[in-house]
Amino acid sequence: MSPDVSPADRPPPARQRSWWGWGWEDEAVPAAHLEALVPLISERVGRPVELRAPVRLADTELRPGRVEAPPLLAPLCSGDPRDRAGHAYGKSFRDVVRAFHGDVPEPPDVVARPTSEADLVAVLEWCDTEHLAAIPYGAGSSVVGGVETGGDWSQDYAGVVSIDLGAMDRVLEIDHISRAARIAAGATGPVLEGQLRPHGLTMRHYPQSFEFSTLGGWIATRSGGHYATNRTHIDDFVESLRVVTPRGTLESRRLPGSGAGPSPDRAFIGSEGILGVITEAWVRLQDRPVHKATASVRFATMAEGVAACRALGQSGLEPANCRLLDPGEAAANAGGSGEAILVLGFESAHHPVDADMDEALAACADLGGTFPGGVKRSGPAGSAGAGPGPGVGANGDGDAADAWRSAFLRAPYLRDAMVALGCIAETFETAVTWDRFDELHDSVVRTTESALRDICGGGSVTCRFTHVYPDGVAPYFTVLAPSRHGDQLAMWDEVKAAAAEAIVDAGGTITHHHSVGRDHRRAYDRQRPDLFAEMLRASKATLDPSGILNPGVLIDPA
Amino acid sequence: MSPDVSPADRPPPARQRSWWGWGWEDEAVPAAHLEALVPLISERVGRPVELRAPVRLADTELRPGRVEAPPLLAPLCSGDPRDRAGHAYGKSFRDVVRAFHGDVPEPPDVVARPTSEADLVAVLEWCDTEHLAAIPYGAGSSVVGGVETGGDWSQDYAGVVSIDLGAMDRVLEIDHISRAARIAAGATGPVLEGQLRPHGLTMRHYPQSFEFSTLGGWIATRSGGHYATNRTHIDDFVESLRVVTPRGTLESRRLPGSGAGPSPDRAFIGSEGILGVITEAWVRLQDRPVHKATASVRFATMAEGVAACRALGQSGLEPANCRLLDPGEAAANAGGSGEAILVLGFESAHHPVDADMDEALAACADLGGTFPGGVKRSGPAGSAGAGPGPGVGANGDGDAADAWRSAFLRAPYLRDAMVALGCIAETFETAVTWDRFDELHDSVVRTTESALRDICGGGSVTCRFTHVYPDGVAPYFTVLAPSRHGDQLAMWDEVKAAAAEAIVDAGGTITHHHSVGRDHRRAYDRQRPDLFAEMLRASKATLDPSGILNPGVLIDPA
Repeated sequence: MSPDVSPADRPPPARQRSWWGWGWEDEAVPAAHLEALVPLISERVGRPVELRAPVRLADTELRPGRVEAPPLLAPLCSGDPRDRAGHAYGKSFRDVVRAFHGDVPEPPDVVARPTSEADLVAVLEWCDTEHLAAIPYGAGSSVVGGVETGGDWSQDYAGVVSIDLGAMDRVLEIDHISRAARIAAGATGPVLEGQLRPHGLTMRHYPQSFEFSTLGGWIATRSGGHYATNRTHIDDFVESLRVVTPRGTLESRRLPGSGAGPSPDRAFIGSEGILGVITEAWVRLQDRPVHKATASVRFATMAEGVAACRALGQSGLEPANCRLLDPGEAAANAGGSGEAILVLGFESAHHPVDADMDEALAACADLGGTFPGGVKRSGPAGSAGAGPGPGVGANGDGDAADAWRSAFLRAPYLRDAMVALGCIAETFETAVTWDRFDELHDSVVRTTESALRDICGGGSVTCRFTHVYPDGVAPYFTVLAPSRHGDQLAMWDEVKAAAAEAIVDAGGTITHHHSVGRDHRRAYDRQRPDLFAEMLRASKATLDPSGILNPGVLIDPA
Repeated sequence: MSPDVSPADRPPPARQRSWWGWGWEDEAVPAAHLEALVPLISERVGRPVELRAPVRLADTELRPGRVEAPPLLAPLCSGDPRDRAGHAYGKSFRDVVRAFHGDVPEPPDVVARPTSEADLVAVLEWCDTEHLAAIPYGAGSSVVGGVETGGDWSQDYAGVVSIDLGAMDRVLEIDHISRAARIAAGATGPVLEGQLRPHGLTMRHYPQSFEFSTLGGWIATRSGGHYATNRTHIDDFVESLRVVTPRGTLESRRLPGSGAGPSPDRAFIGSEGILGVITEAWVRLQDRPVHKATASVRFATMAEGVAACRALGQSGLEPANCRLLDPGEAAANAGGSGEAILVLGFESAHHPVDADMDEALAACADLGGTFPGGVKRSGPAGSAGAGPGPGVGANGDGDAADAWRSAFLRAPYLRDAMVALGCIAETFETAVTWDRFDELHDSVVRTTESALRDICGGGSVTCRFTHVYPDGVAPYFTVLAPSRHGDQLAMWDEVKAAAAEAIVDAGGTITHHHSVGRDHRRAYDRQRPDLFAEMLRASKATLDPSGILNPGVLIDPA
């Protein structure tokens, strides 16, 4: 046990987050590349596209803040236009389009940055007293309106405070024996992994938003992680948590497992900031994996690939990676030419994974899979596990796997580029039991394509699997469609509504790992039992009697 | 998908449950064996013990029922003395002692046996209207007072109805593609496995109470299952569930995974009948395992065995069985002579498990483990996986493993024998993170031994591990102590209170898989966050506004 871990002071951030788009400003697609994309995308969407520049922040009119922080809180609070505009939205397509066009009618009046739990308590007390809506903000990459500071509900409040937890970002304690750490909820993926690395440990929870999302955000939104199978949801990582509510602070007991009543942790995992603000959690860690094996398996048809994923999901082999790309995704991201490609990977900190990979490949071969690139293996230097394949290295993935990973991390930046080109580019996801997958996939693709044709005059829908379960799968859909600056939102909202309806009709969940927020409310209301919504409302009335926390998310204010 | 699975009609039960003790009457320790136990146990506890016979049911005075079922429900309802006495208690040591001595002051007024959800709704309506306490009853093996029909609370009700779900026991639907089934909640382990077997599937959830507990009971109490690692809690098996509450019926959506708000299923898993009555669930199934390997690993000290379990828990190998018996347990149950014995097992329906077993044994050997009995392997007939070891067979466990398994299933019957001998015999369990295990183990053993010395004049405490996690372990303690007929309960209550205190003080949970019920309330109240209890009360007020469901369990009536 190492109490009070104090990582070396970090240099001040040298890079700036984009206030309107994804990620770091200096990682955005450069202007020259944007120009080059014009003909490519025009050809891809079948219509000339027009490149525009985002409205400059200085040209974005922000209404004056309606409230002022009390003197004691003033040092934590900002009314700076960049802060306010940057905290008005998350990073969904809707959000990026609105910000790109300078359409920010309801920014928060104040951005508060507590540096301690005491600060947070004081901020919530202020919000409660003044009836200000309090919007918990981790690193702001919600794609479902989960951190949005305006909406139908806002007129019921005297003001809106975005509470940015980013300053509470330390690994507070490490328990090497149990392999767990107590981590402040505002730590982003790289920040917490950076503090764990010197200890030889890793959390290894890698949502696509890894760089721009926080531990607290992962927990609040029930994030899905890096692993395709077995323990991958943040739910599985949480040993205990600590939550500040307007009624007081709640801390669950650190336990590896328990049968004592319904899990208190699970009551907050997925609560999306409506019940309280998660300030820290004990999370399960791992040793860094040293044995790895990856392969790209090609299937002549999507159906064959689906059958292989089901077989693998039910095999008990538990691959770390088991991502099936449909022919469209494979062509766009992994050098495919008409086949479906399964990116398959095993890893372990403890033992070689070659036998598991061999079993998995045999199962794939039984169902028509081929793996012309062979298996790329890596292991501890000099171990028998380090095989002879090409591409061996710390992350020795195969070519298609490498290509896919790189595309994965760049995707949100490219979406911003599509916004600048006046197109529609967005993703949505679900999970469904295997027996219903074919019907769901057909229906969602058909419905979405039809909506794109009717509304946008065309466009494409592709699918990949992000997670595979014994009893089902999480398909992830990507849409690319022509539109026009000014029309993008109305068009997308209509397409998205049709797709959401198709998902819920076909027995899927409206979200497997993007969460509900404000954008998925209509579909969520159809999906969840009414009496469960009443239970949530009762919990909220207990912890947040004035209803200041994240109004409009998950349930209607009472 | 096979809708409307209709298993062949089963013959009427030929065997009768003991009304006062564990399990089947014809499986109880026979009279001649009881006689033979007198000298053995006298020697073991260091004091002469006296064999008594249980008070006959006919000699047990039951107060007259205070309420009568309305005519429409009368066919479902019983006021038969055997039914009433048999539903007054669960099967904890406290319960068995009281029933053995004919001490049944507060039997239910009525035992209701709904045969359908409509029946259940009608029974709950009756209870709500007449303000009768409604106690959901699966197969009655609660060891924490979870089905008890009397107590402090009972005076607040006009009567008490035990609602026995045993007639709702069918596998209702099987989804072969997703490997899942919809099963009525009153099915016991053997009943549901018997219906699944013809389909080649198994749920493979084997709590010690397997024969005398139901799917609904497992879910309501967050039962721990057969597997020592990974997906073993009932929580992991539940795909969706259906619950009847006084406010109406609630059904969650069948999903392999979801990120849509807090899990509605988790709100009911562990709710112990205070929020509603679970009537059915979709649960995840498995193919029947064909590849098995088991071994008994001996360690000179408990500490070495603990280190090995931690290494295995953190290895990612996920053994199906990883049960460490301390030297006392090993001597009593698995032929040990001073060593700790680890019963280790791997199984798979899909692939050979030899490599996993070899890795696990290598890890054990590194930490001092020896396995003189070698590995017993079995596999599909003629497969390379079927090794040459002795004892090969469908359940080809090693000698110590066999001995342990047999002792495991007989243990509750032997506890009844100890009750007849006027002794104390009971178990309690917890879970704790690895960093705190040594301290918890020392403190619990020291505290319990000291209490036994002071209160009973002696006795033994032994420990085994039932479940192993990456971040901790579930230790399970068995107490055997001298007492006297008439003194057993008062003595045990005092010992148990001291042990419970020690567990919670040392950072453990008051229960890993026995649940809270009424007996663990004091410790649970210390363990769970106060605000979480308020959330539970709010949920209960929403679903059960009159507070008729299982009063006194988990939380105080509002």
